[in-house]
Amino acid sequence: MRGRFLSLEGGEGVGKSTQVKRLAAALEARGLNVVVTREPGGTEGAEGVRGLLMQGDVARWSAHAETLLFAAARADHVEKLIRPAVEAGSWVLCDRYVGSTRAYQGAQDIDDAAILALHGFGSKGLLPDRTLVLDLPEGEGHARSIDRDGGAADRFGARGPDFHRAVAAQFRRIAAAEPDRVRLVDATGAVEAVTAALIDALADLLP
Amino acid sequence: MRGRFLSLEGGEGVGKSTQVKRLAAALEARGLNVVVTREPGGTEGAEGVRGLLMQGDVARWSAHAETLLFAAARADHVEKLIRPAVEAGSWVLCDRYVGSTRAYQGAQDIDDAAILALHGFGSKGLLPDRTLVLDLPEGEGHARSIDRDGGAADRFGARGPDFHRAVAAQFRRIAAAEPDRVRLVDATGAVEAVTAALIDALADLLP
Repeated sequence: MRGRFLSLEGGEGVGKSTQVKRLAAALEARGLNVVVTREPGGTEGAEGVRGLLMQGDVARWSAHAETLLFAAARADHVEKLIRPAVEAGSWVLCDRYVGSTRAYQGAQDIDDAAILALHGFGSKGLLPDRTLVLDLPEGEGHARSIDRDGGAADRFGARGPDFHRAVAAQFRRIAAAEPDRVRLVDATGAVEAVTAALIDALADLLP
Repeated sequence: MRGRFLSLEGGEGVGKSTQVKRLAAALEARGLNVVVTREPGGTEGAEGVRGLLMQGDVARWSAHAETLLFAAARADHVEKLIRPAVEAGSWVLCDRYVGSTRAYQGAQDIDDAAILALHGFGSKGLLPDRTLVLDLPEGEGHARSIDRDGGAADRFGARGPDFHRAVAAQFRRIAAAEPDRVRLVDATGAVEAVTAALIDALADLLP
């Protein structure tokens, strides 16, 4: 029996890493076989691309070059890990996926249709059964991530507040356009309450 | 005054590296400012991608993933080196360019229109003023490259004779489809004769 493919996405500082772990534990507690992975990365080849993408100056790559690198890493990840695991019956929970490319590169004026065309080429357009987007009021996530990372932000976290506002707007746009597949989850409450809201947003998929 | 953009391409063992050097010297002897570069690579970012592409097992990347990686590396190379140099008046001589992606990934059943669409996205579709393709009779180039490299071939050189036959056929198809921009040059003769034939194939562009 085919498993399910879920992605958890959102801007900087929304609590994504914490919720990936908590959500995986909650799904395992329901007896599901859960595979946790992340983007960019998740396979040996894609982790190599991650090194190129996340380190160095903000201006290291143009938005077009980095969009192609994300698509390349994702093609490897889908082919070698995500698709085989889902076909073998696992629930794959991915920390970021193409939704993050649509938000972060979309916020740099890369056309959404072009991003989806690259995704069609590289990964046969595979989309998660459900994309959960953690959402915080304007500015709050970025401020939390600065508290957390100090000066150690990666190439994306290091950008300014206008960029992060544009990313959050892109995520809301995607969720509004695909309300069945993509769910916006309020990330302002206590950690336990956010996990409960994520599970709620999956209720129709759970066995 | 705008310079010119030339690429030198061809299969394994056709004498490309030797001819890039000789052609650059011949152009410099005519008083031109020549910039020699190569693909994949040519800029710091693109050389990082080259490391991922050229090393490791033949099966390290799917044809789709590697096509995206070549497009990403090329986007960086065009933006940061090729386009500025040509606009500043240099003659840029590039050892491989999108013609090699069309031949090597085309030989793995990647659609030519898809390769050109990625090239349009990443590099605004920039094509050389002239692409010179070194051509050898069937099998000869690959045999020469095995003599040269021993067991040290890269991910592409390490493939079998059927692959290299398909690559040569793709190069001939591209040259036949664009006879004005792409010129097939016979690489069987003496080194000096091949350089003379390359210069001949550029005669209409030379000042």
